[in-house]
Amino acid sequence: MGRKYAIIGVGHVGATIAFALVTKGDADELILIDKNEKKARAEQLDLQDATARLETRPKIKIQDYSELADTDILFVTAGNIHALDHASGNRWAEFEYTREIVKDIAPKIKESGFHGVLIDTMNPCDAISQYLQKEIGLPGSQVLGTGTFLDTARMQRVVAENFAVDPKNVTGFVYGEHGESQFVAWSTVKVNGLAVKPLAAKKQLDLDKLEAQARSGGWAVHSGKGYTSFAIATCAVKLSRAVFDDAHLMCPCSTYNAKYDSYVGQPGIIGKNGVEEVVTIPLPPEEEAKLAKSAATIKEKFETM
Amino acid sequence: MGRKYAIIGVGHVGATIAFALVTKGDADELILIDKNEKKARAEQLDLQDATARLETRPKIKIQDYSELADTDILFVTAGNIHALDHASGNRWAEFEYTREIVKDIAPKIKESGFHGVLIDTMNPCDAISQYLQKEIGLPGSQVLGTGTFLDTARMQRVVAENFAVDPKNVTGFVYGEHGESQFVAWSTVKVNGLAVKPLAAKKQLDLDKLEAQARSGGWAVHSGKGYTSFAIATCAVKLSRAVFDDAHLMCPCSTYNAKYDSYVGQPGIIGKNGVEEVVTIPLPPEEEAKLAKSAATIKEKFETM
Amino acid sequence: MGRKYAIIGVGHVGATIAFALVTKGDADELILIDKNEKKARAEQLDLQDATARLETRPKIKIQDYSELADTDILFVTAGNIHALDHASGNRWAEFEYTREIVKDIAPKIKESGFHGVLIDTMNPCDAISQYLQKEIGLPGSQVLGTGTFLDTARMQRVVAENFAVDPKNVTGFVYGEHGESQFVAWSTVKVNGLAVKPLAAKKQLDLDKLEAQARSGGWAVHSGKGYTSFAIATCAVKLSRAVFDDAHLMCPCSTYNAKYDSYVGQPGIIGKNGVEEVVTIPLPPEEEAKLAKSAATIKEKFETM
Amino acid sequence: MGRKYAIIGVGHVGATIAFALVTKGDADELILIDKNEKKARAEQLDLQDATARLETRPKIKIQDYSELADTDILFVTAGNIHALDHASGNRWAEFEYTREIVKDIAPKIKESGFHGVLIDTMNPCDAISQYLQKEIGLPGSQVLGTGTFLDTARMQRVVAENFAVDPKNVTGFVYGEHGESQFVAWSTVKVNGLAVKPLAAKKQLDLDKLEAQARSGGWAVHSGKGYTSFAIATCAVKLSRAVFDDAHLMCPCSTYNAKYDSYVGQPGIIGKNGVEEVVTIPLPPEEEAKLAKSAATIKEKFETM
Repeated sequence: MGRKYAIIGVGHVGATIAFALVTKGDADELILIDKNEKKARAEQLDLQDATARLETRPKIKIQDYSELADTDILFVTAGNIHALDHASGNRWAEFEYTREIVKDIAPKIKESGFHGVLIDTMNPCDAISQYLQKEIGLPGSQVLGTGTFLDTARMQRVVAENFAVDPKNVTGFVYGEHGESQFVAWSTVKVNGLAVKPLAAKKQLDLDKLEAQARSGGWAVHSGKGYTSFAIATCAVKLSRAVFDDAHLMCPCSTYNAKYDSYVGQPGIIGKNGVEEVVTIPLPPEEEAKLAKSAATIKEKFETM
Repeated sequence: MGRKYAIIGVGHVGATIAFALVTKGDADELILIDKNEKKARAEQLDLQDATARLETRPKIKIQDYSELADTDILFVTAGNIHALDHASGNRWAEFEYTREIVKDIAPKIKESGFHGVLIDTMNPCDAISQYLQKEIGLPGSQVLGTGTFLDTARMQRVVAENFAVDPKNVTGFVYGEHGESQFVAWSTVKVNGLAVKPLAAKKQLDLDKLEAQARSGGWAVHSGKGYTSFAIATCAVKLSRAVFDDAHLMCPCSTYNAKYDSYVGQPGIIGKNGVEEVVTIPLPPEEEAKLAKSAATIKEKFETM
Repeated sequence: MGRKYAIIGVGHVGATIAFALVTKGDADELILIDKNEKKARAEQLDLQDATARLETRPKIKIQDYSELADTDILFVTAGNIHALDHASGNRWAEFEYTREIVKDIAPKIKESGFHGVLIDTMNPCDAISQYLQKEIGLPGSQVLGTGTFLDTARMQRVVAENFAVDPKNVTGFVYGEHGESQFVAWSTVKVNGLAVKPLAAKKQLDLDKLEAQARSGGWAVHSGKGYTSFAIATCAVKLSRAVFDDAHLMCPCSTYNAKYDSYVGQPGIIGKNGVEEVVTIPLPPEEEAKLAKSAATIKEKFETM
Repeated sequence: MGRKYAIIGVGHVGATIAFALVTKGDADELILIDKNEKKARAEQLDLQDATARLETRPKIKIQDYSELADTDILFVTAGNIHALDHASGNRWAEFEYTREIVKDIAPKIKESGFHGVLIDTMNPCDAISQYLQKEIGLPGSQVLGTGTFLDTARMQRVVAENFAVDPKNVTGFVYGEHGESQFVAWSTVKVNGLAVKPLAAKKQLDLDKLEAQARSGGWAVHSGKGYTSFAIATCAVKLSRAVFDDAHLMCPCSTYNAKYDSYVGQPGIIGKNGVEEVVTIPLPPEEEAKLAKSAATIKEKFETM
């Protein structure tokens, strides 16, 4: 009965997801799990203290993997942000560290009998999502990564600012790795329903510069606050709501791409089984080449696991 | 037009307030100000990145005190949590540090022409709130501290857990300093509409132990996550909504008490002018004595400023 | 997975409940059933048309009793408001009509295998709720009526207006029948945490007049718009959220009272099983007498079914 | 301070807008005005009764045009739905009736000093919106009609159902009159980011039939419940939030088209001044011809006023 969520890893991202679910009344039940039990307990108490001032009162429990057996949505948000190599802007840098974490977590999830939808935000997002899917043995649709959903939001923000419109007027996608090899598929991007390229040309906007702006925005968040939390958590929550409603909402996310035999950021249709379908939008050759290259990068990394 | 909020200090509390306002669609305009401009910019970007995934799109600006001239609600949440003396559990320990901050901030607020309602979460909350009121020169009603609103929420949580009910079934107040000398006015506390004392007696619950539990909960949050954020931000947002609606909602908060000539945590009626009225609930002598003592503690500290 | 709601009877109350659940994103799945299939289809379409403009997309189905088998919350809101005898202000007048409806509905609910929580708003609310409980054969806790939850809200509004405070500052209960024999248990009512009687005396407010005001407010809604919808729907939705969260929130509602062997409006603790517990607040003799009389009125009517 | 809304005409649409604003906590202040004062009072009371059960407490006042002087958003939703000629499916049939209403209302709005954004839902929506703009004398941007925003939502729903996706995956617009001469500009419609025409061809879907389905959906709502309310109210509220946030959100709506010298349904950018800009999407000749014809129909009708 109701919406049962769990979060493994209550660092900045996990805790922000928890707060969003509680403050908006989205969750009916919420399980928090962290290697640091004191941290999990602190987040539980902080959220429970808030419920005297909120309209609803979700049940919040901690540290119990057995609760995953009937959990509907599991966010995996563990990871050590400090391992991130800021200088190189390289999300793979987290990999050494997160690989160990995920090797610890995956069997516990499997053993719990979890059979809902897993949404991964751990980096490197694509490889970790694929690893979790393999290790836990759930159907591919049920394990997805937030992938380029966040990067697409950043692209939407930057394009929106340059055209003085709401980011929701900007459609289109960032494809590929949630990392360095990602790219904006400008062929898919529209502003107010109109293709971005001619519009940008008319305004003498350089799309490469916009892409760089979106990217540097992400790093400005990282370097300015030491982590990112609000936008990534909002993306993760958005995906989860589409699962509960079986909404068939299209969102770019990290999911399996048969052509490249790898998880990669691409548009998917989100429903009760997770990614119900991958939407294949024909890309021009130079974008398709970027996607191939990005998928290859992910695949290589995945195979080292 | 619309709801214009500003936040001075976007540490954990300020940033969580900002996220709550944006994710729930409460704010139409939001100004973020921080000594660390990179931090303010990072929070702005992180929130703006989220708006592509949210229903609304508040305007978010940074670092501009002149925006306060027509701001409706100003949260003051600056402060260095690390200055907190965990060992002693003493919120006064922050004082040395926050005093300097507030001395820097107050004149800038005054100069901006701000004339809305200021909600302070800085510690020591009562003394800082009073200092801000004096320095800025706004009417007393318009400058309040979250004070024991948070402590009351914690008391509600603990009582609720012990009686297996929703914290919203627990009424009554924590009075006094948002700090060591605070106390639960058990004479005011009811569970399911019934006085707590006989109920506790029947269940052989020791109210002193419950009070200690509430207190230690706060410290468990502090020590487990290094700061508190969700409950305090939720309290602050709740107060702000009561101002916008001119709701005349009763909330314990830090406001001026004429009898003790000091700001102190006590029930107030929150409306468009801030604290429209203080509600004087007759307390038994031992509770009144505690209140007098707590107010004296605050006054002494305030006078050292 | 998620929150599954059903509504039998999509007249003004049922449709407003549906709209509230959809517009706030509370429901993941919603089943609408009405004797008038065109009406059910119209509400379904009107709600579905709205989802292009809302954040979420609940699944909305119609006219299928078999969906109740795994429905969590079932609202029964059928009834012919026009049968209401406005002149006499008598909610029993609906009885002749609603009795036939409920005799048609109850076996279909039973047969569906429904085993969630049923919330009844049909009038006469207390007798119909009890009838539904008996006929469907669910545990008593799982079938409740909105009863005096609405009347209590009206009392809170009137008291709040007279004391210039938020209705949420007013605690206490209306007991008895959701109908003529109901009464405000003034002994339970507090304003800003203080007993209402002395406060009213000080302001020379006549509590009988306030009670009359609350009552006439209800009739003003009826006569001015031809039905009531917003407040009753809001009460019903509030109860349902407390069930999903297993909140143990205290709400007056119509549930079985062992002392009087009848359903009657009284404070209950709402959790995942519906009314988890009845809260017995000691009433002064004159209020207890009113409760006995009101319960007797309900019982008599129930027995004619 | 805060969000101040007014609604003229609290029939089904106006009352539903009011309920949405109150139940979601969107409004801080709400003015209800109706020819039938008892109806306005009934809606006020019904909403106020609800506030004891809601998180917030907007101020709700009635029947006072002078309140419009500082109102931010004014919905004009008067009109007699029963005048609608169901047989002919002709929204112009309401015209005779609504013309008289609007001639009564417009001078009162003007005299009030209202200078916010007016959102009209009265039918015939385009002509009435233009009439209101002229008579009140506000800048054209500040008076808009919901126009084809609702029709577009219906098109999105129908396309979404046929492609088994969320209506939010469907972009594109219905243009023209909110009435018979409207048309789906299929050249603008995309499903999952892909042009609808080839997709429909592949699935052997006839777009004319889909258009007819959307239209008949509207009439099914009308005939099944006697009016439409939820979707139109949701559209109106969505527009108002874009104004408060100065969001620059693109929404089809009824606004002035210079080429055709008439109000007509077309995509606009909604910000703090209402329609900040009209978005001119190049349409193929056959669609442009339809738009011209639809605009001419509206213009002719407007001129009879």
